[in-house]
Amino acid sequence: MTQKDEMDFFEKERGILIVISGPSCAGKGTVCRIVRDDQPDIRMSISETTRGPRNYEKDGVDYFFVDKASFEQGIQEGKYLEYAQVYGNYYGTPKEFVENLLNSGYDVILEIDIQGAAKVRQNNKEGIYIFIAPPSMKELRRRIEMRGTESEEQMAIRLQCAHDEMSNADDYSYIVINQDKDVAAKQVEAIITAEKCRTERLKNKVVEILGR
Amino acid sequence: MTQKDEMDFFEKERGILIVISGPSCAGKGTVCRIVRDDQPDIRMSISETTRGPRNYEKDGVDYFFVDKASFEQGIQEGKYLEYAQVYGNYYGTPKEFVENLLNSGYDVILEIDIQGAAKVRQNNKEGIYIFIAPPSMKELRRRIEMRGTESEEQMAIRLQCAHDEMSNADDYSYIVINQDKDVAAKQVEAIITAEKCRTERLKNKVVEILGR
Repeated sequence: MTQKDEMDFFEKERGILIVISGPSCAGKGTVCRIVRDDQPDIRMSISETTRGPRNYEKDGVDYFFVDKASFEQGIQEGKYLEYAQVYGNYYGTPKEFVENLLNSGYDVILEIDIQGAAKVRQNNKEGIYIFIAPPSMKELRRRIEMRGTESEEQMAIRLQCAHDEMSNADDYSYIVINQDKDVAAKQVEAIITAEKCRTERLKNKVVEILGR
Repeated sequence: MTQKDEMDFFEKERGILIVISGPSCAGKGTVCRIVRDDQPDIRMSISETTRGPRNYEKDGVDYFFVDKASFEQGIQEGKYLEYAQVYGNYYGTPKEFVENLLNSGYDVILEIDIQGAAKVRQNNKEGIYIFIAPPSMKELRRRIEMRGTESEEQMAIRLQCAHDEMSNADDYSYIVINQDKDVAAKQVEAIITAEKCRTERLKNKVVEILGR
């Protein structure tokens, strides 16, 4: 039985917001893509950005590409669940896009950095917060080196930053240690399945069961 | 990577107590057997009983068969996590058997009735409590009828009892609606996997990661 069938069986209900974060190079992007490909009923949030598209990127798939003026107007109007400026470009999560998916019954994954996740958490206590951690700092260093874009100095900054970010793990409900990406993705999927079984989410269903 | 490998990767730790309960005929026994067969590192608790073995039952596999005097002495000595008397026979969960498995790193499933689960919960707050519910009372009635051992009167008592027991679902952390036994077993397995990822269980591992 698919998740959709199960939802049809009971009254249709709002999806779950799943916030996935962690230090960069811990592998959150890879893990999220595996989960998305495994679970056709899960949607990934799509960010708006003012940076130009790379040649392989599609508007409405990888990002919504917008200009700076409209992004700044969006900030004024409270359009974003969270946003940040990185190297002069804005990136933000459009609230309405996410809300529409949730209201249509889809679970939505937000793959986001530590700062963005902290902002989202302030207004969305009912979300699931999952921290993706590397198995060791040595392995994290190896993964940063594999990207091959960092000088020794940049590497030191990145590692210190990752070290500091690890202390944020306590703010999350779950920690997934990404030693193997497929195991990590299965753990994320298990967390989503388990959260759907939490008593506070199913109280109405118990009432429905008693009435049938 | 199996659960055991993953445990070896980090320091060995105590297993998790998983208490599975629900109204009778909701299918908790069937669901537990599927989970046990899927997950070789999970152990089922074995109860002691004073009733005689049926011809297909093996001592130490289905039950530990003991005499009434030794069971009653066990009660005096606080030997049981919970016990009950049913149709003149005692049934109880031996504390030491369960503790030894947990201390050896095995997760242990206790498949137990609502009253037993309530007793276990009093002294084991850190366990995972999962309530197995039927998809509807109509379906529960069908399952009781399929067993074929009930008179109309017994049926009415059983259904009323199940109806009352459904109100205990609130005391559990998770509810698994057993419409399809394989889906239900997968949900139980997901809950166990997710609980292993809970931040409070992994705090020491984050410290370990930072040190490697």
